[in-house]
Order: sequence, then structure tokens, then C-alpha cells
Amino acid sequence: MAETLNSLPAADGFRMPAEWEPHAGCWMIWPERADNWRAGGGPGQAAFAEVAATIARFEPMTMLVSAGQWANARALLPPAVRLVEAGTDDAWCRDSGPSFLTDAHGRLRGVDWGFNAWGGLYAPFDRDEMVAAKVLETERAPRYRAPLVLEGGSIHVDGEGTVLTTEECLLNPNRNPGLSRAEIEQHLKDYLGVSTVIWLGAGLVHDETSGHIDNIACFVRPGVVALTWCDDPADPQYAISRDAYERLSKARDARGRNIEVVKLPLPGPLFRREDEAIEIDSGGTMSRHFGERLGGSYVNFYIGNGLVLMPFLDPAHDEEARAILAGLFPDRTVIGLPTREILLGGGNIHCITQQQPAGVPG
Amino acid sequence: MAETLNSLPAADGFRMPAEWEPHAGCWMIWPERADNWRAGGGPGQAAFAEVAATIARFEPMTMLVSAGQWANARALLPPAVRLVEAGTDDAWCRDSGPSFLTDAHGRLRGVDWGFNAWGGLYAPFDRDEMVAAKVLETERAPRYRAPLVLEGGSIHVDGEGTVLTTEECLLNPNRNPGLSRAEIEQHLKDYLGVSTVIWLGAGLVHDETSGHIDNIACFVRPGVVALTWCDDPADPQYAISRDAYERLSKARDARGRNIEVVKLPLPGPLFRREDEAIEIDSGGTMSRHFGERLGGSYVNFYIGNGLVLMPFLDPAHDEEARAILAGLFPDRTVIGLPTREILLGGGNIHCITQQQPAGVPG
Repeated sequence: MAETLNSLPAADGFRMPAEWEPHAGCWMIWPERADNWRAGGGPGQAAFAEVAATIARFEPMTMLVSAGQWANARALLPPAVRLVEAGTDDAWCRDSGPSFLTDAHGRLRGVDWGFNAWGGLYAPFDRDEMVAAKVLETERAPRYRAPLVLEGGSIHVDGEGTVLTTEECLLNPNRNPGLSRAEIEQHLKDYLGVSTVIWLGAGLVHDETSGHIDNIACFVRPGVVALTWCDDPADPQYAISRDAYERLSKARDARGRNIEVVKLPLPGPLFRREDEAIEIDSGGTMSRHFGERLGGSYVNFYIGNGLVLMPFLDPAHDEEARAILAGLFPDRTVIGLPTREILLGGGNIHCITQQQPAGVPG
Repeated sequence: MAETLNSLPAADGFRMPAEWEPHAGCWMIWPERADNWRAGGGPGQAAFAEVAATIARFEPMTMLVSAGQWANARALLPPAVRLVEAGTDDAWCRDSGPSFLTDAHGRLRGVDWGFNAWGGLYAPFDRDEMVAAKVLETERAPRYRAPLVLEGGSIHVDGEGTVLTTEECLLNPNRNPGLSRAEIEQHLKDYLGVSTVIWLGAGLVHDETSGHIDNIACFVRPGVVALTWCDDPADPQYAISRDAYERLSKARDARGRNIEVVKLPLPGPLFRREDEAIEIDSGGTMSRHFGERLGGSYVNFYIGNGLVLMPFLDPAHDEEARAILAGLFPDRTVIGLPTREILLGGGNIHCITQQQPAGVPG
């Protein structure tokens, strides 16, 4: 059944599981637009392929790919990665894909949020707007259409009633100018099955998504949040991270717990090299210029079945960050992949993946 | 797993099940090319939608649809029909889709045949050539790539070791000019898991597929074949059907049985009306002219779970044909749908459907 429901997920007994709960698989989108991915897309595609191939060792992986890129993607991906055709505007399945939900009976459904290309980074975005519906169709999972512009990267849930997000993004007039904070909170409760919203202020410095939570902080288990940290008072990230720390220290989650904060080092700071700017087709509307600061963060990792897949971005901090994550996820293999090419396109591993929790569509 | 295997299905223990064996579902392709489907595609789409909606009452149905037609198809199809994006060159899933196989352990795989648009009815056909691989990818079913140009409509199997086909099609130099009859027979045995090939001569008169078996005759159960019959000696179909009858009467199937032949009346003869010709975009390479004879046949039906879905083409014969099929399939609901609009595009219900037998991909 590829049904669109008019009821509310929470009222139907559905909630968004935490990313660490068991998955049926993972979804990604094959990158190709040459005004975002340098050198015609090849280096970005190689990085996406390595992410997909690695996750596919741990759980079923599906890559959405345009008709024109089918043969290229098929050649660059291992057989274990399933391809499904879908024309898209770019390759951020965390944001254009659905947020999957489950209920106590093990049923699977999904939320199709409104999508406006992160407040207008590019146009048109009609094909990205269709991605969530197409993913849900393919899985025969019933679909809730939420009356809210939201990308999956702007929320993190603990699976026990709490959602973590940022004011910079969810209260940004470029998303839902007609909705109040209270109305947005109510939609989060209705569509994610949560009862508590924890608001951080700003997201990572120079994050073009208007401060997605998934590039600055995330739950690693109920009651514990990993936060990107910066010790340099001259860095604008310094104050942002301190503000986030203070808000988290004062917060209580849906179960009444205090939040323990684990600091992850900030890589870099990282800047775009000249070749990484000039190899991008002109005409794009996204900022891709030589010398600009890149929104790199170790918190932008993916939790799969038995796996944590994290970006490696800076030899000075990669191993330190991996050791912290290994301590936080003792039962999972923590793998670091060099993902600067993904960062150059505007995000990282968490942004390009979308978990599908275990469940039977219904 | 979306694997391509280099072994032979028969050697791996796989065979193509008969169409009456239990299905996991059915696949179709949404029609849209205006140089084949009259009036911009609308009447044909309405007929396809009715076929899909009817089958979806009996088994899961998936419709492949281009990105451009997604919204239109979604609006015209009931929620029970799953959409999956795929750009194609036309809408004949029997012919561009895979032939699914199963083994004794209930595993599901599929054959991806070579495809050349029925010996060259149109070009390009590269997107149709990809349909089988895409269907198998979506189902995560391992794929055999056969070294043979063949459309699913040119074969019928009894599920017990016998395949029925025509010389006009399979031996036609527009398909596999480099292969002998013996080599073609060997490929059929290797890829369908059969041991006996029964050859008819020609297919239905004025069938542009070069005589597909599925428009003149089909197994209705092991040992029993339904054959399109014509009692008018002035009709070119008269001699064709008699020749087929004689060949079937002399044949033995893989189990050594004689073949019982059940005659189905020929509708019409049917001819293209003027409006049915002028409403087709010019520029197409297929014959679509006023007054031409149409290859209508009642044998072009689909067997689904608990269902036989047959074309209604001629009020003078529709009920007679339905009564015969109802007698042949006493445990199934026999439904007739008016499908002249599908016939105008070059085929009928069997041509636009592709069953997926029950089985677990592996």
C-alpha cells in the first residue's frame, strides 16, 4: 500500500526511532550536479560510493540514481548496493528523504516533510521535494504529509520522547515564516511522536543549512549528547558551542533525565582550496568560492547496524574523535572515511544517509 | 543483493514458473509516448489504470513511471498500486521486463533478455533495454543476463518443463540472426529451465511483434493450450490457426503428454478507425494508419492470484470467450475489461503485465 494518511502519527501510536535502533537498511542519493560537485562529480561520487559500500557491509543499502547516471553508478558501486531510479535535484537523502516511523506493533510508516532546498539554496527543487514520497512508495510504507518545511538533518531524536534541534534552523523565516515556535513544537510532537523539544541556538559556523543540528550535536544514547567543541576564543564556533553546552546542561529530556554532554573536537578550521572552487561549474547559486570556511564536523556521522561511520577531515583530530566515538559506542565498529569531497558539496555522512528502521510497512 | 550471475539458471536449479502459480505481484509500465498512444496518451492511460487497479485487487501491483508522468499516474491510480520511477521507451513490461525464475527452495531470480524493440519497431530503445535490470534491482533479485534477444511475450511455459513459442518470432532474422534453431532451443532450456520446446509457425495475423505466442496461444494448465481460432477461410488467420492446431496435436510436452487444444474465437476482425489514427503524433515509426487491421485476440489475458483478466474487444464474441475461460479456470474470477485502447498501441493485457512469482530473492 502506498497510501497517504490524513491522521497524525503520534495519535496513531507512531514515533521516530533513534538512529541506533535496528535498521532494515539505509538510503542514499547519487550525486551528479556539476555546479555543486567539483570536476563533473567524479570525486564526490567516489566518496559517496565508499560510504555506500561501507554501510552495505552492515545493512541493506539502496542508492537512488538518475537514469542518466545509472550505468556509472552501477559500475562504481558493489553489487550489494541496490539501485532505484529517481531523478533528483541534489544528493542529500537525510534532508529530502522521509523520516521513518515505527509503532509498538513493528509497523513502518514515514513522514514526508515540506522541502524548499534549505530555505532556497537552489531552484528548482521539485524533484527533491518528491524524494520522500518515492522512497515510501518503493517500500510500500504509508505516508504522512507534514504541514511543515523541515529537513531530516535539522532534528535528532532519542527514541524515548525527546527531539533535539536548533532555533537557527527551525525558527528561521526561510522555512516556516507563518508558524510560531509553539506551532512548530506541536508539529514535531505530532509527527515524530515526541513530548519534549530541546532547543539549541545556532548550528555550526558557516553551515549553509541554517544550522542543522546534525552538524553540531547528536544523541548517542538517551541522556547523552555529543557536541562539537571549540577551544579557540577567536573562533566564532567558540561561543556557539558554549551556548549549546549551557542549554544542554539545563535541559531535561522527556524522561526527566539531565543531559550528559560529550565534547567532540572541531576539525580544522577547514577552508576551500582554489582547485576545489574552480572545478565547480559556474551558474550555481550555492557559495563555493576559494578560501571560504567549510562546515566540517565529526558529529556528522551515521549509526548503522553494528556500525558508526564517521568523517575523517583533519589528521590533527581524526583519531582523537574516533577514540571518543569508540568509547561512546563500545558495541559498534567505528570506521572513519576521508570525506572532504562530501564536505565540499555542503554536508557529510549523516547528511547523505537516511536510515530505515526495522519494521513491516503497514 | 543486486547481483549479476554468470552461471546458467537451469544448472543452478531455477525454472520459470507457469503464470498460474502463486504470485508475489505484478509489474506494469505507464504509457506516455504520443506517437503510439493516441490523444496524448490519455485514453491508453485510462485503460492501463483500469488493468492495474483490477489486478491490484488480487495481488500487489507495481507501476513503473517516468518522473514527468509521476503526478499524473499517481492521480489516476489507486493507492494500492505502488509507483516506482523508471524512464522507458514504451510500456510493454511483458517484453522489456524480466522473466522471473524460482527454485525448489523458493528463491527468486530473473532473466534479463536482450531487447531490440521487437526487431526494430522504434529507436532508441536503450531505456527499455534497462527495464529488466531495474525491476530486478528493485526486488534485490539476482539477475541472469541471457545472450539472446527475446521478449517475454514470445514464450509461454507450463511450469513443468515445456515452453511454447513461434518460429515467426524466435527464428526471425530481426532478433538473433547469428543463432541456429538448435542454439536458440539450448538458450531456452538453459534460461527457462525447460527440456522441451514446442514450435508453432506463425503468430496472429497483423501482429507487429513478428508473431508473439502470447497473442495466439497459451497454456492454461499443463497439457492444455488455448488457441485463437478462426472459421472464415477468407481470413489469413484461418490457415495460421489450423497450422498451429496441427502442430499442437502432434506435440508431446516435457512429461510426454499430448496437448489438448481449446479454441478461443477471434474477435472482429478489427480495424483502426480514422480518429484512432489521426490522434497519434506523427513522426513515429510504428504502423498506425486508418483502416489497418488490429491484432486483437482473447488469448492475450493475464493470470493473477485468483484472477483471469481478459480483454473485451468485440461484443459479438466477448461473452463467448469469457465463458470458455471461465470453464478453463473454475477456481478464478474471470474479468473482462474493454481494452481497445491498449490494442491500438500494439498489444493487450498480457503484453503490458509481468508476473513476479512468490519467492525470496536470493
